[in-house]
Amino acid sequence: MIQIIFLLSLFLSISNASVQDFCVADIKGSDTPSGYPCKPASTVTSDDFAFEGLIAPGNITNIINAAVTPAFVAQFPAVNGLGLSAARLDLGPAGVIPLHTHPGASELLVVTQGHITAGFVSSANTVYIKTLKKGELMVFPQGLLHFQATAGKRNAVAFAVFSSASPGLQILDFALFASNFSTPLITKTTFLDPVLVKKLKSILGGSG
Amino acid sequence: MIQIIFLLSLFLSISNASVQDFCVADIKGSDTPSGYPCKPASTVTSDDFAFEGLIAPGNITNIINAAVTPAFVAQFPAVNGLGLSAARLDLGPAGVIPLHTHPGASELLVVTQGHITAGFVSSANTVYIKTLKKGELMVFPQGLLHFQATAGKRNAVAFAVFSSASPGLQILDFALFASNFSTPLITKTTFLDPVLVKKLKSILGGSG
Amino acid sequence: MIQIIFLLSLFLSISNASVQDFCVADIKGSDTPSGYPCKPASTVTSDDFAFEGLIAPGNITNIINAAVTPAFVAQFPAVNGLGLSAARLDLGPAGVIPLHTHPGASELLVVTQGHITAGFVSSANTVYIKTLKKGELMVFPQGLLHFQATAGKRNAVAFAVFSSASPGLQILDFALFASNFSTPLITKTTFLDPVLVKKLKSILGGSG
Amino acid sequence: MIQIIFLLSLFLSISNASVQDFCVADIKGSDTPSGYPCKPASTVTSDDFAFEGLIAPGNITNIINAAVTPAFVAQFPAVNGLGLSAARLDLGPAGVIPLHTHPGASELLVVTQGHITAGFVSSANTVYIKTLKKGELMVFPQGLLHFQATAGKRNAVAFAVFSSASPGLQILDFALFASNFSTPLITKTTFLDPVLVKKLKSILGGSG
Amino acid sequence: MIQIIFLLSLFLSISNASVQDFCVADIKGSDTPSGYPCKPASTVTSDDFAFEGLIAPGNITNIINAAVTPAFVAQFPAVNGLGLSAARLDLGPAGVIPLHTHPGASELLVVTQGHITAGFVSSANTVYIKTLKKGELMVFPQGLLHFQATAGKRNAVAFAVFSSASPGLQILDFALFASNFSTPLITKTTFLDPVLVKKLKSILGGSG
Amino acid sequence: MIQIIFLLSLFLSISNASVQDFCVADIKGSDTPSGYPCKPASTVTSDDFAFEGLIAPGNITNIINAAVTPAFVAQFPAVNGLGLSAARLDLGPAGVIPLHTHPGASELLVVTQGHITAGFVSSANTVYIKTLKKGELMVFPQGLLHFQATAGKRNAVAFAVFSSASPGLQILDFALFASNFSTPLITKTTFLDPVLVKKLKSILGGSG
Repeated sequence: MIQIIFLLSLFLSISNASVQDFCVADIKGSDTPSGYPCKPASTVTSDDFAFEGLIAPGNITNIINAAVTPAFVAQFPAVNGLGLSAARLDLGPAGVIPLHTHPGASELLVVTQGHITAGFVSSANTVYIKTLKKGELMVFPQGLLHFQATAGKRNAVAFAVFSSASPGLQILDFALFASNFSTPLITKTTFLDPVLVKKLKSILGGSG
Repeated sequence: MIQIIFLLSLFLSISNASVQDFCVADIKGSDTPSGYPCKPASTVTSDDFAFEGLIAPGNITNIINAAVTPAFVAQFPAVNGLGLSAARLDLGPAGVIPLHTHPGASELLVVTQGHITAGFVSSANTVYIKTLKKGELMVFPQGLLHFQATAGKRNAVAFAVFSSASPGLQILDFALFASNFSTPLITKTTFLDPVLVKKLKSILGGSG
Repeated sequence: MIQIIFLLSLFLSISNASVQDFCVADIKGSDTPSGYPCKPASTVTSDDFAFEGLIAPGNITNIINAAVTPAFVAQFPAVNGLGLSAARLDLGPAGVIPLHTHPGASELLVVTQGHITAGFVSSANTVYIKTLKKGELMVFPQGLLHFQATAGKRNAVAFAVFSSASPGLQILDFALFASNFSTPLITKTTFLDPVLVKKLKSILGGSG
Repeated sequence: MIQIIFLLSLFLSISNASVQDFCVADIKGSDTPSGYPCKPASTVTSDDFAFEGLIAPGNITNIINAAVTPAFVAQFPAVNGLGLSAARLDLGPAGVIPLHTHPGASELLVVTQGHITAGFVSSANTVYIKTLKKGELMVFPQGLLHFQATAGKRNAVAFAVFSSASPGLQILDFALFASNFSTPLITKTTFLDPVLVKKLKSILGGSG
Repeated sequence: MIQIIFLLSLFLSISNASVQDFCVADIKGSDTPSGYPCKPASTVTSDDFAFEGLIAPGNITNIINAAVTPAFVAQFPAVNGLGLSAARLDLGPAGVIPLHTHPGASELLVVTQGHITAGFVSSANTVYIKTLKKGELMVFPQGLLHFQATAGKRNAVAFAVFSSASPGLQILDFALFASNFSTPLITKTTFLDPVLVKKLKSILGGSG
Repeated sequence: MIQIIFLLSLFLSISNASVQDFCVADIKGSDTPSGYPCKPASTVTSDDFAFEGLIAPGNITNIINAAVTPAFVAQFPAVNGLGLSAARLDLGPAGVIPLHTHPGASELLVVTQGHITAGFVSSANTVYIKTLKKGELMVFPQGLLHFQATAGKRNAVAFAVFSSASPGLQILDFALFASNFSTPLITKTTFLDPVLVKKLKSILGGSG
């Protein structure tokens, strides 16, 4: 028997350790345009490929009655290089995930509890809106403004999956009113009223 | 007012109709290596971007107590070109999605009901297995053999999301025993016993 | 001599017509996720590879004192499949290209006349702003909100080049106020004041 | 003359050392999703771009009368980032490369000696088989189960070229019977007979 | 039995015909930036995946004592979308494949008979040259000028494999002297002597 | 107020620092096939995204009356991973950018002063030539030989933008006559006259 195994091992002159099936991120290494360097395969275990961080609901005790919990590469290093990541959306009654974009990925939403009204705006300024029920899917093409909001009075839950390990997330209100974007430049480039801009900045913590 | 809108329209000398944000598949057209031709944007509605086909459980009245319902580009044309697609997995007690690969995509699994034991085998012949609960994620790197099975006695449900609109699905048993792969060639290339091969072929409908 | 040429022609048993160096778009064909079908190479001439549409200034007689003239694949079919396209920006005194994104491309700006203040907001809600002079470059990473505005009192001109033949263009104000995005949904997903929303819709032509 | 060269050097204000034509792998560096870091160009020589490791036949003194010798990025660092790698197949009389997949690449086979019967199984469970002679090519699309076997009584040799520097190699029998995949899970997910599974594990060295 | 198969068929609610494992080119269709449209899978047979066109030596009865026989997508439609293609090189005594580039692919050369001296020039104007024997590999990074020539007095044969189904082939002498590139423009942009240019044009059939 | 901001911060359980919108090159790090490692986002400022190096004209006091000034990733690290880079072309009277290729990118040229005659040669040995005026664009598909030359008697300026952060630049005359490419090999692989080759080598500094 030993001899057979020994002979067999001759058949394939390849070091298994040298084959890259996956590249679990070493997130302490420097990121690159294609993702993080890989952890040595010898230190990777089953636990790396699973992620418990989306099991618990996000805390929706806030002014939007909603929470987004990401499982991007920074949280779930196994997605590095796989072209996929995820997030959990929790929506309370009247909850809303405000208008936002993912600069680096398209999104596929799966509703797993309750009802959600979701929509996006195209480059042609057409708004596509649907009210979704449990088990229903919706896609949001890359980079376009979109939102999700509770439909009905019950809590809702959904999982969003992205076509990149690092999809990015630009929330319109945060970009404008929680940043150091100056009020004169905001009003000049959006035509929004400066009084409103300052009011929203004071709520969201923006400066400038 | 009309004059202002008129002047505004001058600002951007672009035909909105010419911008490609999305490419909902015209599945009657010929497929290409990058996907199907696009439906004219003028015929696309909100309904194109949502998919109801995964709302209902799959029929698990079969010998594996399980069902896979796909939302690939052929079923859900809006994913064309977006690098994403999905499937619903229904698993009854002792249910199993037999060993399979997706030749064209990595997979991210989200468990939404019950408990699932899932695993994959790497090129280095290491098996990575986890038992997952509701809300837990697992990733399966592209092209590797993997399975999902019910853990515990209750039904389980999961959504799989793929990094391609057309991930493919090669089920090991179907490739071997539900195909026209001849028994001599199977035994020669797998070392499986020909009696077993013929028995499984008779169950699964293979020929040759 | 003829014989030499004849023998030479034997050396390479390839039909030159079958090699794809370029794929000038047949824009009457159906678009695909990778771009338009190619015009037959035999009908392509030098004129296809040059574009005169950005020679003349855009008309800036409008409320923003600015104009964007695109040379995307729809206008300049030769960029099809080359991962490049362009646009001309004309900015009068106090002119502004309002806050916008390109969902499908990064942008490289070259200022060719006057001074331009430009900036973008990152996912981390940091604003990066520069005032650029003639010959200076600036890059705007894919999908992020950005703007360009005249700096100083003179007219300014710039050429923007994009990393896709079809970069898309989503202007924030048009997405919100020139679309059929309903006022209740806008206010719910942006926290903007409904009175302001309705006012801007009346100026920009939005409905809902 | 010196002056001319000096003036010429002014014409191009570019440091040649900064241009990346190639990226020969520094395989002691950490791999990334796009491949290994590059060796400094100043240390790269002609020898890096050639590979002698496939000149000698592989050792086919084993139970399959066959050998696979890889020239993947780990063996031939110059292929890093070029989207290509290779392997040599040696097949003795009645030799066989057992059923396997390359999770990360398509394969193009060139037969250079003898006759080879090769085939693959599609996702639609169709088997495509051909017997190839010297100089004949065959392609195996990415991720699909395929095999090569000696046709006739003479030795055969072939070169396989892959569409990735790191194509991966998952041999079905090794994944099942030379791994730590437990017999109960194998039988549950493949319907193979547990007695057979244990027998093949004892030959191939699997555990569990 | 029939019932079992029937029940099994329920398990997977997917039309096999809808899965894209491969995309054999319909070369009468219009090419796209990603390749040709796919032939209907129902019309694809084993013969599509094999190619006999490189079995016979190319005709080297010409002034370079050499021949290149391509198996690009136009000749071998099965490579469409797979990121691979091939060519056969036949080199007689003192034969040479003149300096050329592949604008769209890197190349991996496998020598299968005789000895070949091959080399390429980098952007840094360094020449990398090797004399290769049977079974030896060499890579030529994308787009760089390279050549192959017989080493020694015996005939040589090699197979080149490319990282694209449509790598392109620009032969320097043909681009300059077998084209309609005018002599004044050639001399202006290359500093070659106009008398030499005209002489080579007369041999190679160029005009202008 | 503080409480509101605090509650808001709960809504999004994501570390902004972990999102990759851009990857400004750390050019002291090792390059990879996808580009350089990223500088820490915390050290990136507005200045990184702008580039002043193309403001000043290049020095055209040389035998070609022309200069190319690059803004590739080595000079302008912010383009790392964005699929874009640029160069400035300065052309004096009778100036010429000699025949060259970019092995890794397509090019889009914008003429900003004077008139330029530009052209490229396809794989089918067809020459596409245009004389361009200020504001006119021209594209040069990846890897093909092309040139730019002053048309008329006035100085001309253009900006070239590339579809890669590292497009490469292979100047035909430099590859042949400023390298260590031996005269016998050059004459063998190009049919150029050895006397001419040696003369051009003596001017351009080549050896061998």
